[in-house]
Amino acid sequence: MTQILSAAPIKKKITKELKSDCKFLKENGIHPYLKVILVGNNPASLVYTASKKKYCERIGAKCDIIALDEQIELIKFLTIIDEINHDNDVHGCIIQLPLPKHLLHLDVGKLVIQEKDVDGFHPENLYSVLSNQNIETHFVSCTPKGIITLLRESQIEIANKRVAIIGRSMIVGKPLACLFTNHNATVTLCHSKTQNIREITKECDIIVSAVGIAHLVDETFISNKKNQVVVDVGMNTNANGELCGDVNFEKIKDLVSAITPVPGGVGPMTIISLAQNLLQASKNRLSL
Amino acid sequence: MTQILSAAPIKKKITKELKSDCKFLKENGIHPYLKVILVGNNPASLVYTASKKKYCERIGAKCDIIALDEQIELIKFLTIIDEINHDNDVHGCIIQLPLPKHLLHLDVGKLVIQEKDVDGFHPENLYSVLSNQNIETHFVSCTPKGIITLLRESQIEIANKRVAIIGRSMIVGKPLACLFTNHNATVTLCHSKTQNIREITKECDIIVSAVGIAHLVDETFISNKKNQVVVDVGMNTNANGELCGDVNFEKIKDLVSAITPVPGGVGPMTIISLAQNLLQASKNRLSL
Repeated sequence: MTQILSAAPIKKKITKELKSDCKFLKENGIHPYLKVILVGNNPASLVYTASKKKYCERIGAKCDIIALDEQIELIKFLTIIDEINHDNDVHGCIIQLPLPKHLLHLDVGKLVIQEKDVDGFHPENLYSVLSNQNIETHFVSCTPKGIITLLRESQIEIANKRVAIIGRSMIVGKPLACLFTNHNATVTLCHSKTQNIREITKECDIIVSAVGIAHLVDETFISNKKNQVVVDVGMNTNANGELCGDVNFEKIKDLVSAITPVPGGVGPMTIISLAQNLLQASKNRLSL
Repeated sequence: MTQILSAAPIKKKITKELKSDCKFLKENGIHPYLKVILVGNNPASLVYTASKKKYCERIGAKCDIIALDEQIELIKFLTIIDEINHDNDVHGCIIQLPLPKHLLHLDVGKLVIQEKDVDGFHPENLYSVLSNQNIETHFVSCTPKGIITLLRESQIEIANKRVAIIGRSMIVGKPLACLFTNHNATVTLCHSKTQNIREITKECDIIVSAVGIAHLVDETFISNKKNQVVVDVGMNTNANGELCGDVNFEKIKDLVSAITPVPGGVGPMTIISLAQNLLQASKNRLSL
């Protein structure tokens, strides 16, 4: 029987922990507070930011969505972030991507200070992931962190395993490769220029796809040993307007030992990671 | 015929370029100046720092070795680095490793400011390598940078190739994996916990060993297709006190298409990279 790596039972367990942590922080005078900067009206961004706010409030944290006009002037945009960086009541700040064209030249990972960068995009936070130092107090990017949590909570062994990651983005592929390496896996980072990618994925114990191509990973990527684990980071829309992953779930679900569903797999884990990072940022304040 | 990837002809060519760049900088009022901090009397460190000084002077740059007592007080050590960080006449500073035990708790990559970190160990410089941004003005770690230069100058194709790197250190393995990925290679980062490492190296076009185990890589790591490139980063001492690499050169030299010698391969390339970084740091000052 293929194990379906659903986020639901893990979310239930971690939510309980987060509620308890949040209560403790509030009892100690800290009310965890996230600000989400949203520029424009990208439909997917509206859905994602609303989910983040809802989950923060569910665990007892505060969350405001700062909705900014698509045309916002650069200087005004930077001023708003600067104010948040200096606001002692705010513990975490994220900038929802994508940004409109006139803000794309910004090095977005450096805008929010390291201490409040609960998305884990700041150079200092990525350095922690690369160097495997101070991981406990710094912030690991939410999707990679969520994937590791999902595998560990599902009792999937990581150490000594071979992992193929498809996609080398700074948001998923690269930090995830570092995390798996830190957990003693042997990682092959694949991308659009990789030749014979199926030969690589067939050799690996764990396959992660994070490229944003609907149903890219099908039975031709899978070995015939029925012992592989497949993690699908894709959030694509198919021709019928439906959400679908990078993985052709129906075609491979009986060929592997475990697989994440879309929706209900990596997506919810990303939001859980964000809340964990927010509470960590709040706890860090406590120890000052 | 196996191609021996010797640094000598490349060094000759690049030294000429560096001399010319250095002359240009001096004509524009900037005399490139490196400070090398050396704590204690580690014999290998004495040799390395002397080589670095000699090469800097050969291209026309200034280089001082700041030789400090093995027992130097922490506060004094930090004060010296702080003074160098603030000294406008100094363009680059490196701290020769290893440091004595009482300084090992320091996050050594953060001591020298990014602008003078010509070793490429600062989080901001490593972030550039990871994100493939601002590589031209930031500093890539010297050994990884030297390996890429050696391969490119030797007309070894990198894009679309599969690369196995053995060793996940922050000085070589991890930044080198990022660099190869940035150059469109597909990298598998191997380490002490990797199972069946020979199966991986046999599949790859380029094998880099950077683990510090004398003669680890022998014919059992090599495919029988005679088309692999082997790069040896090892600087080990064998039972007779002689310098030897991670690779058993004699055993595999006829089984591969190209191989670096030890000495005379990666070692000199590391010093060239340091000098390139120093001149880049000096040029960055010019544009201020």
